[in-house]
Formats: sequence, structure tokens, C-alpha cells
Amino acid sequence: MISGQQYIAGHWCGQTEEGIQSFDPAKSRALAYSFAEASAEQLHQVTSAAGMAFEQYRQLPAQQRADFLQRIAAELKACADELIPVVMAETALSRSRVEAELQRSCFQLSFLAAELVKLAPINDAALPERQPVAKAALQLRQVPLGPVLVFAASNFPLAFSVAGGDSAAALAAGCSVIVKAHSAHPATSELVARAIARAAEFCAMPAGVFNLIQARNYQSAEQLLLDPKIKAVAFTGSQQVGLHFARLLQQRAEPVPFYAELGSLNPVFVLPGYLDQQPERLAEMLVHSVSQSQGQLCTKPGLVLLPQGPALQKFLQKLRELVSAQQAGPLLSAKIAAGYSKTAEQFRQMAGVELLAEGVGEELGCDRRLRVFLTDSPVVVSQPSLMEEIFGPATVLVVCQDVTQMQMLATLFAGQLTSSFFAEPDELKQHKALIRQMELKAGRLIANMMPTGVEVSAAMQHGGPFPAATDSRVSAVGGNSLQRFLRPVCYQNMPDLD
Amino acid sequence: MISGQQYIAGHWCGQTEEGIQSFDPAKSRALAYSFAEASAEQLHQVTSAAGMAFEQYRQLPAQQRADFLQRIAAELKACADELIPVVMAETALSRSRVEAELQRSCFQLSFLAAELVKLAPINDAALPERQPVAKAALQLRQVPLGPVLVFAASNFPLAFSVAGGDSAAALAAGCSVIVKAHSAHPATSELVARAIARAAEFCAMPAGVFNLIQARNYQSAEQLLLDPKIKAVAFTGSQQVGLHFARLLQQRAEPVPFYAELGSLNPVFVLPGYLDQQPERLAEMLVHSVSQSQGQLCTKPGLVLLPQGPALQKFLQKLRELVSAQQAGPLLSAKIAAGYSKTAEQFRQMAGVELLAEGVGEELGCDRRLRVFLTDSPVVVSQPSLMEEIFGPATVLVVCQDVTQMQMLATLFAGQLTSSFFAEPDELKQHKALIRQMELKAGRLIANMMPTGVEVSAAMQHGGPFPAATDSRVSAVGGNSLQRFLRPVCYQNMPDLD
Repeated sequence: MISGQQYIAGHWCGQTEEGIQSFDPAKSRALAYSFAEASAEQLHQVTSAAGMAFEQYRQLPAQQRADFLQRIAAELKACADELIPVVMAETALSRSRVEAELQRSCFQLSFLAAELVKLAPINDAALPERQPVAKAALQLRQVPLGPVLVFAASNFPLAFSVAGGDSAAALAAGCSVIVKAHSAHPATSELVARAIARAAEFCAMPAGVFNLIQARNYQSAEQLLLDPKIKAVAFTGSQQVGLHFARLLQQRAEPVPFYAELGSLNPVFVLPGYLDQQPERLAEMLVHSVSQSQGQLCTKPGLVLLPQGPALQKFLQKLRELVSAQQAGPLLSAKIAAGYSKTAEQFRQMAGVELLAEGVGEELGCDRRLRVFLTDSPVVVSQPSLMEEIFGPATVLVVCQDVTQMQMLATLFAGQLTSSFFAEPDELKQHKALIRQMELKAGRLIANMMPTGVEVSAAMQHGGPFPAATDSRVSAVGGNSLQRFLRPVCYQNMPDLD
Repeated sequence: MISGQQYIAGHWCGQTEEGIQSFDPAKSRALAYSFAEASAEQLHQVTSAAGMAFEQYRQLPAQQRADFLQRIAAELKACADELIPVVMAETALSRSRVEAELQRSCFQLSFLAAELVKLAPINDAALPERQPVAKAALQLRQVPLGPVLVFAASNFPLAFSVAGGDSAAALAAGCSVIVKAHSAHPATSELVARAIARAAEFCAMPAGVFNLIQARNYQSAEQLLLDPKIKAVAFTGSQQVGLHFARLLQQRAEPVPFYAELGSLNPVFVLPGYLDQQPERLAEMLVHSVSQSQGQLCTKPGLVLLPQGPALQKFLQKLRELVSAQQAGPLLSAKIAAGYSKTAEQFRQMAGVELLAEGVGEELGCDRRLRVFLTDSPVVVSQPSLMEEIFGPATVLVVCQDVTQMQMLATLFAGQLTSSFFAEPDELKQHKALIRQMELKAGRLIANMMPTGVEVSAAMQHGGPFPAATDSRVSAVGGNSLQRFLRPVCYQNMPDLD
């Protein structure tokens, strides 16, 4: 059952209106679900509810919070049959992708449930006899920041949306959560929120520990961002909107952490030895990575630096072959499809840029073809807009004279989520300076693998220098994602109060 | 030897001018040292030098950086006889305080040297057989952010100045450092910089790993803050200047972490049972804490909440006695002395505020008397400026009807570095709600001790919600202070390159 309402303080409330319409991008037609735009009064209520719930939720034993996260995972699994078709209809993502994403979302919840019970205080023992002054016992614990506002991502309707990584990390930390649903998948959002609501009820969590807001108007987002009850904000989306929100947050009397992921080129450096040895294998891996989920992944390789040399043509030939066999397919929304077409057209018209290859099929509705552009290093230097992300199934190949020219080009890169290096044994050591250079520009350095595929584990880092992320010191995925919503408090000479 | 120059890229440079004059606040007269104001060209040079040095310094083995920090501590100890009289002359702090601060600065360097070699990567082993996809080996390491700009504090000429906690943490993290000396102790700053320079030479560190700038003009600070080579900023000082810098940093294309400590009231809650039992002991501890270093400590107790009751008069009587025996003494600078007088006069004129007691002696030059103001909770509610920090030897006592009224008042508090509770056994448990409330407002919660005295250790937290600090997730003191200048990078499937 999908009511089209807001979920505030443990209740579905408000009237269903024609405000936000669920849409099927594959068939380019409206789905039978509509959603009310949250009112200013509801937005006020939701931050109050999250504030009150936080006071109770933060004081629960860690194991109770962990049980709640585990229960959310169980509720999501239990409603998979109802959920998956709705996700597929609203996003045009394949069944296998949606199934994998659901599994990953459940794993994330379980993983963070395990991490949160592992959080242990740091203890410094008292030294009452120390001279010249005694040392008091100190205990350092982590306390949650407060109500967290999560902006769901369009491209991960489950894993970075209502019960995604940001919500899971905030709830694990002991924060209450308000999710602003993405208007590209409102029905998915409501179904997931209903699963969380069932888990909250089962675990007797305080009303308002989790809340869902459907809102398309920027004013709604702005009202939430400026509400002093909100103590941290997580956002995944476009650089334009993210920077707008960042500027808006500067108006707050009390600054709050803003964890935004704003896009990344994920440059791939192909070293000469590797290209010589494996030109066709590289083409296969690249096409697979760029076309995965229709190129709508934050870690899609958007810029590939290739050395001149005899094997280059073999690589390009294989790439042409593979790309021209790719069928056009639907992007996540009409807006994303339009943005893709616009940027692809700009690239095609740039002097010195060739459309090396493209997929087949009509570009009707939200359907778009895969595109590979070819250019060289001097052209990129003179036209830096070639280093802007194309969101969708496209990548830019940049031919360089040699690795030195790659290094020169890399000095122009902004911050990145990832940087990959394809190299024969010993080539990485030989070009260590390039890797050390990218160490300062990326959050994850990868040898001989494409950047798509982000492991949920303790050693993962998903984030990077600006503008890949607004705070490079934290990760949006993995064990450290929890730390975004905690701060340390030292208890000095303090007895146990529980 | 004090030259009055800038220290840039391993050289003392520029002409000595009459730009910045060293001053003795105890005697209210100029000292025989003058310092050149850094030129725009020098400010440009210094960020370039720090940028180049960073490239080399960050790649040194951890042990070499640790040896460098240890050597700085050794050089500081070795020049103590020359240094201490200069610090005393420029700050009017007592010999015992300056000696303790030097020892603490050296300990900080050694402590962080030990912490940095303990930084270990997190490893996730590869699972090549995992289904449906293999797991690659992941290693999470910490990389330094880049050149760090440190604004030295006036009130800790050693421990939060040129070789203080911020510089030590940044160097430990692998960052190069530019210190903007505080113009209240320029000669101290140069002597300490010379000790660091000797250590850098002895350890063959890259030129530019550490740099000292003497600058009084705000434009100089602003030029440094806006330089894109600067990747993090640490600041201890007034809220006014700190917030100005924060706004200025918003103009940068690439945002950088800004770690500012902007002042704190450090509220002290006295619970009824404690006041009944130990009114005189409390008065002794309070006077000692408020008058320590002439009240010029960031953790000075600036607001004391006391319950009504029969013991209150006994406490006030003892306090009057102790305060009126305190002799006026010099503050750190004429500016600080003037600011103290201005705020103290404002407080004295407020309706409902009584000057309960003050010290003795003339307020000539930079000398100022200790002051204790007395008011009650309704007055503070109606005049929130009573909750602004007085920098200097003063505190405000607030009489409350009961602990419930204390809790009400506490809802109005901004973020604090510390919050202390004086309580009899079981009183803390009984008033657990008050402690849980302050958990959200302070970085350190203390039972039955005054807030002054900050331990340098693993479990310390020095920082707190805004405006006590601009980033409550980190600490300016202790093991976590290092983390301010690091960010995580994940190495995926990457062989060891060293």
C-alpha cells in the first residue's frame, strides 16, 4: 500500500495530492502513485519530532540500536517481492542490479549494526600519585551529533536512499533521521520507509527516530537545511545543487557538518606496458564499467588517459566494436536523460574532440546510447570543460605522448573519488611519482581494476578531495561512515551513571 | 640572537623594520626587539615553500618525522635558559607557569611523535573465490592534507604557539607548517622558530617544512587564508576574529578544514549536597581556578551555577575573603587588559548583577584585579550577554532555585569546551538528566574538579560544539589532534611501492 503521505513522528500524515508523480522512465509514462508535497508546517513538525526522538534514541544501549538496524534489514528482505518491481518501474534499472542493491543495502545495515556495538571508549587510568599534579581518570566516548537530514540519491534508489548508507550510519551513530526522498523514486521511498516504520514499531523505538519527507520544491529543502534542530546533513547529487546547499548552510548561526558527494571523473591511467600487452582486455573492461547501470554510477570511469604507441589502434578498434554493439537503454529520469544529451552534444561539437564510437538504437523517451569520445592532452588543457563529469553512459579517452604528459595533465585535475592505474608488473613502481601525485587528489587508488564496485568494508574509503566530496576526512561507505555522525566527549573523574 | 625577520624556506629573510614591537606588559614598556611585517611577496613565497616542502616531507618514513619532532623538543629544552626570560618579559606569566608550559610543549611533541609511528593501516584481505564477485585486497592509510596555516594563540606563548599543539600535530601528520606568530610575543616566536630550524637542519628536513611569519596586518592573514596552497587552518583566538576568518574562507573555491577555538564559559554546576558539605573548599578551588594565569585560560570557569540553600552564604563569605586578598596582576597585553576592563564594566552596570568581590591593587598599565559577579537565573535569562566570555580574571555566579532551574538555564547555553559538576556521591546519578543534557553541549564533562588543566593524553577531548570550536568532531589536544590533518585513502589491489 502506497499512500503518498509524509511519515512524521511515527505517523503517515497529510493529504495525498497530485504534487509529485511517480514516473516510469523505461516506458516514459506516469505510474499510478502520486505524493503530496510536504507543507511548511509538516517540515516544522518533522524537525521537532526528530529532535525529541533523538533525546530518547541516543540514550538507548548500543545493542538495542544494533537490533533496530538488523530488523530494518529483515523487513526490507521480507518485502522484496513487493519492493523490487516498484524500484524497477521507477528507475529502469535491471532486476539483477536492483536485487544486488537490495542485498547491499541489507548488508550495509548489518555491517553498521556490528560496527556500532564495537565502538569502545578510550580509557586513561588515573595516576593519583603523579607529581607535580595528579592525573584524573579520563574516558573518551563517542556521542551522536543530533538529528541528521539525508538527501536521497537518484542513482541508488536503495543503497543511497531512504534506508541507504547515510541513514544507516546516522541511525547506527545514535542520531534520529529525516530523509528527503528523491522525487525520481517516491514510491520506492515510501515502501522502504514503511519497512523502517515496521522495524521501529517492532523494536519499540521512539516515534520520530526516522521520518520521510516527500518534497520537490527547493524551498522545502532549504527550510530543513536552515532548521537549527538539524545537526548534520548528508547529500549525494549534482555539484550545482550541492554547492547551493553548501552556500545556504553558511547562513546558519551554528555551522553543521555537510557531507556531500558532488561527482567525480574517476580518471583511469593506462601505462604503456599494459596497453601493449592487453589492449583488447582493457577495452572490454572499460566498456563494461562505463555501461554498467547505464553509466549512472558515481565511480564510472569518465576520463581515460592512454599512451601513444602501436597498441593504441588495437585498443580503439576493439572499443569501437564493443560500443557499437551496445543497445540504447533508459536513464533514471527525463531530467538526467536531457542533461546527458546536452553535455554529449557539447562534447561532440568541441574542436579536437571526436565521437569515436556510439551504441545503437533510438534515443526516444529516456533511452540513450553509449558514447565514447576521443581527444588528446593539449585539447583537454585548452578546454577544461572536458574534465566535467557526464552523468550517464559516456567516457572521454585522452591520448598522451607519454606518462610525463599524463602527469602534467593530472596536475589540472580536481579532487576525485578514485583513480585507477592499469600497469604491468613493475610499471607501478616505475611510475610511482604518478601514483603519489594522485594520492593527493583521490580517495581510492586502484591497480588493474575499474573503479566501479565499492566494497562495504572496514578499509573502504568513498570520498575524496573537493569537489568529489565536501569533507575528504570521512567516508560515505564502510566502517568510517559511522564517524560522520559522532563526536568525542571526554569524561573526567566521572563515575559510571548507568 | 633575534633578527626580527621572517623564516621562509629555511632562511631568515627580509629587513628588520619597526613594524611590530615586542612589549613587556608587566612594566608597560617596549622591549628591545622589533620585527618586520611580512610583505605580500614574502607571503606568496612562504606558501610556495610550504607546498614544495610538503611534497618531500609527506613521503618520509614515519620514524624520520618522529625523530624530527623529538629533536624539536630537545632543541627547545636546550635553549630554555635563553627562552624563558623572553617569554616571561613578553607575557608577564610567572616563571613556574612558563616552565610548566615549556615542559608541556616538549611533552606534546614527544607524545605526538609516539602517536604518529603508531598510525597503522587497516587491511581487508582479498577474497578471490568470493561469489558473485571476488573481493580485492584493500588497505586504508592516512595521508596528510597539505600545507597547514597555524595562527598562534596569545595565551599559550609556547604550548599553543609556534611549536605548540597545532604545529606539532600538523608536522606529525606529515604536513608542512606556516605559523603566523602572535604579535603579543614576537621575540618568543622567533626563538622557538630558531629551535625548530636547528632541529630541521639537524634532521635534514626539506627547507620550508616549517616557516614563521610575523604579521600584524589583517590583510596578511587574509592573503594566507585565501592561498589555494593552504589545505587546513588552525586558529585559537577571539570569536570575532575567528568568525571573520570563517566567513573569509567561504570565498575559497576549494573549502578547507578550519579548526578554530573561539572561547567557552566552561559552566560549573554545584549540586545542593556538595554545597552543603563543602562550601569553603569549593570557594578555594574556584578562586584558584579563576585566578590561575590571570584568568587567561580557555578552560577558566566563567559561569558558576549555585543552588539556593543555607550553605550559600558560607560559600560567598569565604569567596569574598579569598578574592579580596588577591593582588592585581598584569594581563598578557594592553589590548586584552582593555577588553577585560570594558566587559567587567558592562557587567557591573547591568541591573540585577552585583560585584560580589574584587581583588586589591591599582589597575595601572596592564594590571587588573580579580572580579566575581553575583546574579540569579532570571537575570541571566533576560540578559544573555552575561553568557559571553570575559577573557581575564573574572567569573559570574548564578544563584538558581534548584537543579531544575539550572537545567532550564543550561538549555540556553551555546557549545562549551567543558562542563563541571560538583556533587556528593550519588548526586550525579540523581541528576543524570543534567549531565546527559550537557553531554550535547560540551566536549569534556568533569566531576568534582575545576576545568582548568588539560591533560595531553589519548582520552583527552579539547573542543566542543560551536562556538567553543568550529569542528566538534576533533580535538586540539591529545591523540586525536593528529587526525585533524590527515585523510583516509584506500589502496585497492595495489602492490607495495616502497
